[in-house]
Amino acid sequence: MEQWSFLDGGITSAKGFRAAGVEAGVKYANRRDVALIFSETPCVAAGVFTTNRVAAAPVVHDRAKLAAAPRAQAIAVNTGCANACTGPQGLAAAEAVAQATAKELGIAPELVLVSSTGVIGAPLPAERVIAGVAKAKAALASGPQADEDASRAIMTTDTRPKRAAVTCEIDGRTVTLGGMCKGAGMIEPMMATMLAYVTTDAAVDAAWLREALKSAADVSFNRVVVDGDESTNDTLVCLANGLVGNRPLDAAHPQAAVFLGALKALCAALAKQIVMDGEGVSKFVTVRVTGARTAGDAHLVARAIARSPLVKTSWFGRDPNWGRVICAAGYSGAEVDERKVRILYGGVCAYDCGTVADAATLAAMQELMKAREFEVAVELGLGSGEDTIYTCDLTFEYVKINAEYTT
Amino acid sequence: MEQWSFLDGGITSAKGFRAAGVEAGVKYANRRDVALIFSETPCVAAGVFTTNRVAAAPVVHDRAKLAAAPRAQAIAVNTGCANACTGPQGLAAAEAVAQATAKELGIAPELVLVSSTGVIGAPLPAERVIAGVAKAKAALASGPQADEDASRAIMTTDTRPKRAAVTCEIDGRTVTLGGMCKGAGMIEPMMATMLAYVTTDAAVDAAWLREALKSAADVSFNRVVVDGDESTNDTLVCLANGLVGNRPLDAAHPQAAVFLGALKALCAALAKQIVMDGEGVSKFVTVRVTGARTAGDAHLVARAIARSPLVKTSWFGRDPNWGRVICAAGYSGAEVDERKVRILYGGVCAYDCGTVADAATLAAMQELMKAREFEVAVELGLGSGEDTIYTCDLTFEYVKINAEYTT
Repeated sequence: MEQWSFLDGGITSAKGFRAAGVEAGVKYANRRDVALIFSETPCVAAGVFTTNRVAAAPVVHDRAKLAAAPRAQAIAVNTGCANACTGPQGLAAAEAVAQATAKELGIAPELVLVSSTGVIGAPLPAERVIAGVAKAKAALASGPQADEDASRAIMTTDTRPKRAAVTCEIDGRTVTLGGMCKGAGMIEPMMATMLAYVTTDAAVDAAWLREALKSAADVSFNRVVVDGDESTNDTLVCLANGLVGNRPLDAAHPQAAVFLGALKALCAALAKQIVMDGEGVSKFVTVRVTGARTAGDAHLVARAIARSPLVKTSWFGRDPNWGRVICAAGYSGAEVDERKVRILYGGVCAYDCGTVADAATLAAMQELMKAREFEVAVELGLGSGEDTIYTCDLTFEYVKINAEYTT
Repeated sequence: MEQWSFLDGGITSAKGFRAAGVEAGVKYANRRDVALIFSETPCVAAGVFTTNRVAAAPVVHDRAKLAAAPRAQAIAVNTGCANACTGPQGLAAAEAVAQATAKELGIAPELVLVSSTGVIGAPLPAERVIAGVAKAKAALASGPQADEDASRAIMTTDTRPKRAAVTCEIDGRTVTLGGMCKGAGMIEPMMATMLAYVTTDAAVDAAWLREALKSAADVSFNRVVVDGDESTNDTLVCLANGLVGNRPLDAAHPQAAVFLGALKALCAALAKQIVMDGEGVSKFVTVRVTGARTAGDAHLVARAIARSPLVKTSWFGRDPNWGRVICAAGYSGAEVDERKVRILYGGVCAYDCGTVADAATLAAMQELMKAREFEVAVELGLGSGEDTIYTCDLTFEYVKINAEYTT
C-alpha cells in the first residue's frame, strides 16, 4: 500500500509557497508568459537539467548557483524565448533577471533561479521579463487560482496546464509536495523545453534531496518520450522550505522511503500529463520491458520502441504490427534472442518465442488499440532487467504542427 | 578526376551475368516478386548484412554460407514475405529455396544465396518461391529488359526500380560493375528491407572484396537514413566472376583504389536512389558534418540530425529552423561547443559561433529550401572529424503510408 495520497493541488499546495503567472508580452500579447514561484523562507534546493551539450543560459545559470550552494527561495520563469545559443549576452540577461527578481523580492540574488522556454537563438528581452516579475510579485498568492495562473504562464503549445500534489506523513506531521510542469520533447516549433517544478514544506537534507530528485526524475521525466528530441532547456527543480518542522530527511531517516515514494509519484503524475498532452497525440502507450539481461538493456529496448517512427505510426493507425516492435528491439543494441521473446499488446500475446499471432489474435489486438491508452509489453526471457517508458503515437497532427511554423 | 564513369546499366551489365524477374504469386497476383541473378561461372562473393539482433532466416543462411566459403554463383530473391521471426522452419524454408535453385541451375547448393523481403512473422511459402525460380531460370537474360525485370521484382513500396552501373580500367581491361537495390529504412508497412546486389566481371581476391564492400557500404548504404529503423533483412551482396581476366584485385594491386572508387560510386548512386524514393519523401537532404573532434563524433551529430523528427518536419515545412539542428547536435552524444559551431543551409550561414541569422538570412534559407535537394552543413570547429549522411524529410505521406496498413 502506498504511504502517500494525491490531492487536488499545485505549486502552492505546500506550506509557505506562493506563486503567480502574468502577461508580460515577452513575445505575444494577451498571454500569460512570466511565472514566479516564491517561498516565505529560504529553501534547500536541487535541480536536474538537460544533458544536451548545447545548454541554454538559464540552465548554465541555475546549475552554477546550485553547485555553489544548494539553496533557493524564488524561481522566475518566462516563455516566448529559450535564451539558448545566445552566448555571453544570454548569460548576462539571465543574471539580470535574477538580480532584478531578488531586488523585487528583497532577497539575496544567490537565492533566485531562472528558467526560459521558447525560440532558440533569439536574445532574451530581459526588460520585459523583469517588468513581468514585478507584476507577478504583486500578484503572488496561494491556492487554486495561483496554481492555475502559474501553471498556465509556463505553457507554450501545451493545450492544458499540468499540476499535481501529494501528501505523506513524516515524523507524525503532514508533508505536502506540489508541482507543475510543461511540454515534453521539444513541443513547439523552435520551442524547446520540459520545465518542471516541485515545492515541499518538508525539511530535507540538501545532498539527499539531490539524490532523491535524480532518482525520481529517472522513473518519471526520464521515462517519457514524445519525439525523442531532447531540448536545450530541460529543467526540474525542487524547493524544500522545511516549514512542517520534521527532522530533516536523509538516507538515515526512517521515513525517507515514504518521502521518496511520494516524490516519485508526483513526478510520474506530472510526466504522464506531458505525454498525454504531446503534440498531436492520439494514443498514450506504456512500453514495459522485462526479462532483459540488464536494466540498461531493458532501457535500450524500451527507448528504441518508443522512438521508432514505424512503431509510433502503427499505433496511430491501430495496426497490430508487432513485427515493428521486435525489429526495434533487435536494433536497440540490447541482447535479444527472438526464440525467447514474447510480445503482448494489452495482455494479448502477439508473438511467443517463435509462435506468431493468428488472424483472430490480430483482430483482438486491433480492437484493444481503439482505447486511448494501452500497454505494449516485451518479455526478453534473458534475465531480470526491466524498464518502463511512457510514450505516444506519431500522427498527421504532429507533422502538421512541426512543419507549419513559418510557411 | 575520377577514374571510373557511370553507364546506363544494371545487374547484368558486367560480362557473364544474367538475371530475370517474374510473377510467382508469393503474396499478391500480377506482380513480379521473384528475382534471380546468375553468373555463367562461380564468383568470389562478399556480403554485408543487417546488424539487427533479430536477423531474418535468409540473412542467417547467407552469412553462414559466405563464412564457410566466400563464393556464389546465383542469388534467388523474393518479395512478399521477409522470412523473419520464423524460427527453424524459416531456416529450413530458406535452405529449401537454395537447394531447389541449385538443382534448377545445375550448380552446387553452396553457391546459391537467398534473400527475402516483406511481412515479418509470416511463414515463407517456399513452394511458390521455388516455382518462381524455375520460371525465372527459363527467363534468364542479359541487357536492359533483364535489368528492368529483375530490379522491379525486388520492389515492395518502392515507386521505381533502382539500378546503376559503372566502368573502370584495371590492368588495361574494361571492368564493369552493375547493381540494383530496393527500399531504405523499413519502407513498407511490415515490410522490412534494404536489399542491394552488385555484380562485376573483375577478378577480385575474396578477402579484399569483403573489405572493399564493407568500406563501400560505409560511405553509401550505411550513410542513408529514412526513418532510422533498421530492418531484419538488410543485405548487400557483391559477386565478382573475374571474366575480364585481370590480375585478381587485392590491397597490393596498383589499381585497387580505382576499383574501390568505382565500387563506392556505384553503391553511393544506389543508396541515394533509395533515399530519393523513400516513403512520402519530398526533400533529399545531405547532412555534412565537419570539424568534429573525431569521425565518430561527426557521425553521431549527422545521425542525430538525420533522425530527428523535429528537424525532418521542419525541412518538410521549409522552416529555416536551425535551432532544431544545433539542438540535435547537442544531444547526439558528441562533443559540441556552441561557441564554435557554424550551421549553413545550402551555403547560407544561419548560425556562426554565437551570431544568429537575421530575418533576411532566414528568408534566403526558406527560399533555397524550395529545392528538392539541399545541403545542411554543420561545422563544429573542434577537430578534423567529418561525416556525411543522405536523408530526407518527414511528411504527412510517411505517416499515412505507415499508419494505414490494416485499418
